[in-house]
Amino acid sequence: MNSLSWKVDGTQILAPRAYLASAAAAGIKKEDGRLDVGIVYSTRPSIAAVRFTTNVVKAAPLLVSREHLENSGGEIRAIIVNSGNANACTGDQGLAAAREMCEIAARVVTIPHEQILVCSTGVIGVPLPVERIEKKVDELRRGLNEKGLDGVSRAIMTTDTVRKVCTAETRLGEIPVRISGMTKGAGMIHPRMATTLALVVTDVFITRSLLEDALTEACERSYNRISVDGDTSTNDTLIVMANGASRAIPIQEKNERYRGFTEGLTQVCQCLARQIVRDGEGASKFVEIDVCGAENEAAATRVARSIANSPLVKTAMAGEDANWGRILCAAGYSGVPFDPDRVEIRIGDLLVCQNGTGIEFDELQAKQILSQRDIQIHLDLKSGNASSVMWTCDLTKEYIHINADYRT
Amino acid sequence: MNSLSWKVDGTQILAPRAYLASAAAAGIKKEDGRLDVGIVYSTRPSIAAVRFTTNVVKAAPLLVSREHLENSGGEIRAIIVNSGNANACTGDQGLAAAREMCEIAARVVTIPHEQILVCSTGVIGVPLPVERIEKKVDELRRGLNEKGLDGVSRAIMTTDTVRKVCTAETRLGEIPVRISGMTKGAGMIHPRMATTLALVVTDVFITRSLLEDALTEACERSYNRISVDGDTSTNDTLIVMANGASRAIPIQEKNERYRGFTEGLTQVCQCLARQIVRDGEGASKFVEIDVCGAENEAAATRVARSIANSPLVKTAMAGEDANWGRILCAAGYSGVPFDPDRVEIRIGDLLVCQNGTGIEFDELQAKQILSQRDIQIHLDLKSGNASSVMWTCDLTKEYIHINADYRT
Repeated sequence: MNSLSWKVDGTQILAPRAYLASAAAAGIKKEDGRLDVGIVYSTRPSIAAVRFTTNVVKAAPLLVSREHLENSGGEIRAIIVNSGNANACTGDQGLAAAREMCEIAARVVTIPHEQILVCSTGVIGVPLPVERIEKKVDELRRGLNEKGLDGVSRAIMTTDTVRKVCTAETRLGEIPVRISGMTKGAGMIHPRMATTLALVVTDVFITRSLLEDALTEACERSYNRISVDGDTSTNDTLIVMANGASRAIPIQEKNERYRGFTEGLTQVCQCLARQIVRDGEGASKFVEIDVCGAENEAAATRVARSIANSPLVKTAMAGEDANWGRILCAAGYSGVPFDPDRVEIRIGDLLVCQNGTGIEFDELQAKQILSQRDIQIHLDLKSGNASSVMWTCDLTKEYIHINADYRT
Repeated sequence: MNSLSWKVDGTQILAPRAYLASAAAAGIKKEDGRLDVGIVYSTRPSIAAVRFTTNVVKAAPLLVSREHLENSGGEIRAIIVNSGNANACTGDQGLAAAREMCEIAARVVTIPHEQILVCSTGVIGVPLPVERIEKKVDELRRGLNEKGLDGVSRAIMTTDTVRKVCTAETRLGEIPVRISGMTKGAGMIHPRMATTLALVVTDVFITRSLLEDALTEACERSYNRISVDGDTSTNDTLIVMANGASRAIPIQEKNERYRGFTEGLTQVCQCLARQIVRDGEGASKFVEIDVCGAENEAAATRVARSIANSPLVKTAMAGEDANWGRILCAAGYSGVPFDPDRVEIRIGDLLVCQNGTGIEFDELQAKQILSQRDIQIHLDLKSGNASSVMWTCDLTKEYIHINADYRT
């Protein structure tokens, strides 16, 4: 399976076998009629692995989900999610609301509430009007169907301008399998673990501990490699469910099949994570930072992250300015020791800095490269063979506009 | 002297005894006729202590200054500085230019070039046209006078909208002494050591090692407590010179006089550092982050820094939005463990969050507080007795505008 290739489609979300979903407009979002609540449900027993935010301030739904994961031994069959309100910093009232959401979901899909996870995203510190979701029980139940994941992917949007989905397909043995995901997020995005909401479902059969390992690896190479603004949210949650409904040969040890599955999960997570960056709040450009020639991958990642987080690099990208000095400067304060006099920097294919010093380059060509929607920055430290990549966006006036009055 | 109070004036720079200075417009800055080169000179033997940027990419003038500090054993009598060009990432040519600047200064004030430090600030990666400075030798020499520090404080400005100066005065024994400083910087400001250019001169007599210690402490409590955008420059340099010309009683051990001097130096550095934040690129507000109730000062500083660096908090300030959830969220990802359910947050005097949960507050009063030029945010972790403070500014569209096309 490792040698098998995954067909990855970032434009639609097709359900793996035995998953149903449904969404509704419960009036949590300010705008009338926008989808803001959704349920994803496996008609067969299934398991889940989850990565939660590293923020010590964890929203109520995360606390309840963690409790349910423990109580059910990971046997999770449904996820209920809402947008428009993060149910974070809401005290005991918030915990009660998160539990109530699971009770609501339990009534919709008729399974024990411990087998349900709950996610919320939106404004912090405002009580969640859970009674509005309660009114949607019948509508959500009636709406459950195999094409419902698309609706849920719309129901989790906040400042997102587009829904973000991905479907990966391959054959395991002779049997077709799918890994399908959705994600949201355009601000509060920072690369230290599951920096957003992401729901991924698969019909592969895999043990819970292997699913955890695969998710850890996929997350490290996707969600932990993106940055919009350096803020790590209180609600970040990345869930993957697996129900084995494909009846493909089970993954029970770290063999070729496990590696093939992990590769597919990574590709789905990367596809979703990159969509977040492309839709970064106010972003006009997608910027890939490639760092090579490092002593090890951790060092390469650290340098790439420092460049990706620099407001001065990000504003230079917005201004289509080939200001490589800011790139080198950001590498310099990453905390990774290197010899600045050996560094080489390219913007797209254009060499702009050699041996740590600027060289003459065609400003017109630079402008042409930087006027594109997608920009690559390559930095070679010339001190080793390891490399890494980060994805970020430019920093524009629109980011300020979106965030200066989000709450009001 | 510790009980003595310093009179601190952040509006003018008066020379301590036996300091001369002079400035000129050499045409390094794009705009004709703007001052862009300056010299500060002690007519008596003097010493200097310096903090350089922690960035591994260090500009040529820093390398040359470090060499001169070592060669002279700290016996520094003059500083030459230019703006409009950082002479960073300029290779061997840059090193030669920095040395040439010291030669020029040596001709102006007729001392050995090893007794001279050099600073540059401005655009990175562009060769410094040092020959333009060379043409100003006579003008700089003729211009040397006791009131010249003000001109130098203007000559170091880049995107600064105002010059930044401070004069502190007290009596040491019966003898009046001064600590006078100037600084520049409005972007690339981040609190990890001397995050800008700052020149401080005093006529106190103090040994070199004690001056180093005093500077370390003052820097930690001033320049290391401010943040504009999280970028640590290649050129940051904080220099303090002491020439003993006041003939006040020497400071030769860590006694009351040493502590009194350190307090004065700290107040000067804080006064200068806060002026930088007030003039932060695009800033419309000055924001003080007070964190108390921490287990130790380092933890309090870390939490305060995390809040001060959060683009979401900074844009909320720009939007005059009492979004305390973002404040608590930023505290949560600071890396400091605490119990979120005990946290209390005030904006100005207004309590907005208690026990980690939002409370009803008067939105009109919040708006009134946030519409001020100066804003205080208080966060009580309720888990100890240590406190700390950080100073930052809001993040506005104007920041993007200034930085999107700085180089071109």
